Amino acid sequence: MDSLFRIAIDTMSGDNGLEAVVPAAVMFLKEHDDTILTLVGDETLLRSELKRLKQTDNERLIVQHASQVVTMDESPALALRGKKDSSMRVAINLVKSGDADAAVSAGNTGALMATGRFVLRMLPGIDRPAICTAIPASKGHTYMLDLGANIDSTSEHLYQFAVMGSELVRAIDGIDSPRVGLLNIGSEDMKGNEQVKAAHERLQSGEFNYIGFAEGDDIFHGDVDVIVCDGFVGNVALKTSEGLAKMLSQEIKAGYMKNLYTRFVALISYPVLKAFRDRFDHRRYNGASFLGLKGIVIKSHGGADSLAFSYAINIARKAVMEKVPERIEQHLQKHLVD
Amino acid sequence: MDSLFRIAIDTMSGDNGLEAVVPAAVMFLKEHDDTILTLVGDETLLRSELKRLKQTDNERLIVQHASQVVTMDESPALALRGKKDSSMRVAINLVKSGDADAAVSAGNTGALMATGRFVLRMLPGIDRPAICTAIPASKGHTYMLDLGANIDSTSEHLYQFAVMGSELVRAIDGIDSPRVGLLNIGSEDMKGNEQVKAAHERLQSGEFNYIGFAEGDDIFHGDVDVIVCDGFVGNVALKTSEGLAKMLSQEIKAGYMKNLYTRFVALISYPVLKAFRDRFDHRRYNGASFLGLKGIVIKSHGGADSLAFSYAINIARKAVMEKVPERIEQHLQKHLVD
Repeated sequence: MDSLFRIAIDTMSGDNGLEAVVPAAVMFLKEHDDTILTLVGDETLLRSELKRLKQTDNERLIVQHASQVVTMDESPALALRGKKDSSMRVAINLVKSGDADAAVSAGNTGALMATGRFVLRMLPGIDRPAICTAIPASKGHTYMLDLGANIDSTSEHLYQFAVMGSELVRAIDGIDSPRVGLLNIGSEDMKGNEQVKAAHERLQSGEFNYIGFAEGDDIFHGDVDVIVCDGFVGNVALKTSEGLAKMLSQEIKAGYMKNLYTRFVALISYPVLKAFRDRFDHRRYNGASFLGLKGIVIKSHGGADSLAFSYAINIARKAVMEKVPERIEQHLQKHLVD
Repeated sequence: MDSLFRIAIDTMSGDNGLEAVVPAAVMFLKEHDDTILTLVGDETLLRSELKRLKQTDNERLIVQHASQVVTMDESPALALRGKKDSSMRVAINLVKSGDADAAVSAGNTGALMATGRFVLRMLPGIDRPAICTAIPASKGHTYMLDLGANIDSTSEHLYQFAVMGSELVRAIDGIDSPRVGLLNIGSEDMKGNEQVKAAHERLQSGEFNYIGFAEGDDIFHGDVDVIVCDGFVGNVALKTSEGLAKMLSQEIKAGYMKNLYTRFVALISYPVLKAFRDRFDHRRYNGASFLGLKGIVIKSHGGADSLAFSYAINIARKAVMEKVPERIEQHLQKHLVD
């Protein structure tokens, strides 16, 4: 076999388990013939699922047994100590041992981050990992980090986020010099908290395209490629956006279901609504990168369906192809400030 | 005249100036016969606008001359020092002197806050003022503070925000025991930054209905009446929501304008779209309260039209009617912890 990329898939975590994940793997392989996927999880269940999907002969689907599952509300410490044979842990171990180039999991964020950090360790020059994902904008999309791995980030951490986000976007989107903004409240120099003011200074010295402050609404404009912020603030912004989008979509649905006339309108409107839904389909944006680790770990949304999960696998493939961790490391070594 | 409430209106600030504000005042008075409005601004311009609107004989519209205007990008310090006869300053002076019960302005937030604080001073027991507004939710709406007056808030500040928000909602919405949540990332006790952890302890000792942590998406559920947070985080959440809502509305519009068929669909969909737009019309939520001052100052959105501005005047009227600053002061005196 001449496959280039090897990705380990945690099939047991997430809200939908292997019934979402295995079909996602099959779907993904149909589109990409340069990848081998190792399905990590309960071997019996996996073999039976592969049989159901008529994939027992697929040489690019390897089964790797793991006897435990990290639950969605399990504490990171407990998962680390008590579940050494979990599908999550085994998938990351495969990255560590060099048997896989990346791991993808829909498992709980805290446990996945703690396990990734413990097993793979941090890149030299990076103090803390960060979670980064693309968010749809008027023009294209905007990457944002950190989305909740870190709280109380210092200006040095924000600087490292800028390096990592910048390299990720260069790698994944092929943009030569991604525009990096620092999340703040107001664009004048005088505004912002102490953390942001100090980071503004520090970012100006960086070897990336720092364009200054960005505000919350800039996330959706698409005039900035990467927005860096403390994980507390980033997580609030992300959850707020998700909450608003969900509420609006529910209210629109309710509006169309109101009576016979509105139901008729919904029918007539189908092409418009579908185009809109497709454009902002959150499944297409599934797959957050855990940056700063010595290895590639991609976090899928816990509730991801097969389509969504296949997008997360594709993020992993791109990160492997473009050697994201190596790029970050090289950037840091080249521009080391001491 | 037997009017009960006297509200001073800064007619010169904001993006639309008196052409939006004076019609708003007229509109407001048609609905409320218990209020006198003092229009503060250039007397000549105001008289001519009143003439145009056939309101020269309206005894509940008083004109108060002010020779200066604080611009939208003026620094608070410059506005305070250099514009002592601005429409903004004169309106707030009227509150200070007791000639008005409240001031409403669409002027720049920083200058309005600085002027309010300088002229009116803080309530005893309140260290910092906070900006609070209602945000539409699935069920009703959610009040949130602080939205940008303060950064790097301590747990004591967050406690004071909880007191102020709680009293505001009791007064404005008539809810006996508003549910207060603390914005955090995740609902387990272990999460959150240092500030939030300390505030969680402090809030539990408060004489209000503290129900624990809230996340970004809870803003739009309506299961919490008041969400307190640091002004940096609150401002990011607010701007993020505004940015997302704006992008989605533009994209929906663009979708309906695409071709003849979609334009036809838009026509047919009008009742559904209108109901939706009315439900989330941001103009109906115009009017942020500056809490913690010895007096009532309401900030209108800078770009408010007449309808939106009239809603801000009504927030001022309710705050006067329900004596919001006195309620906050009484709460603090009654439950003083020392």
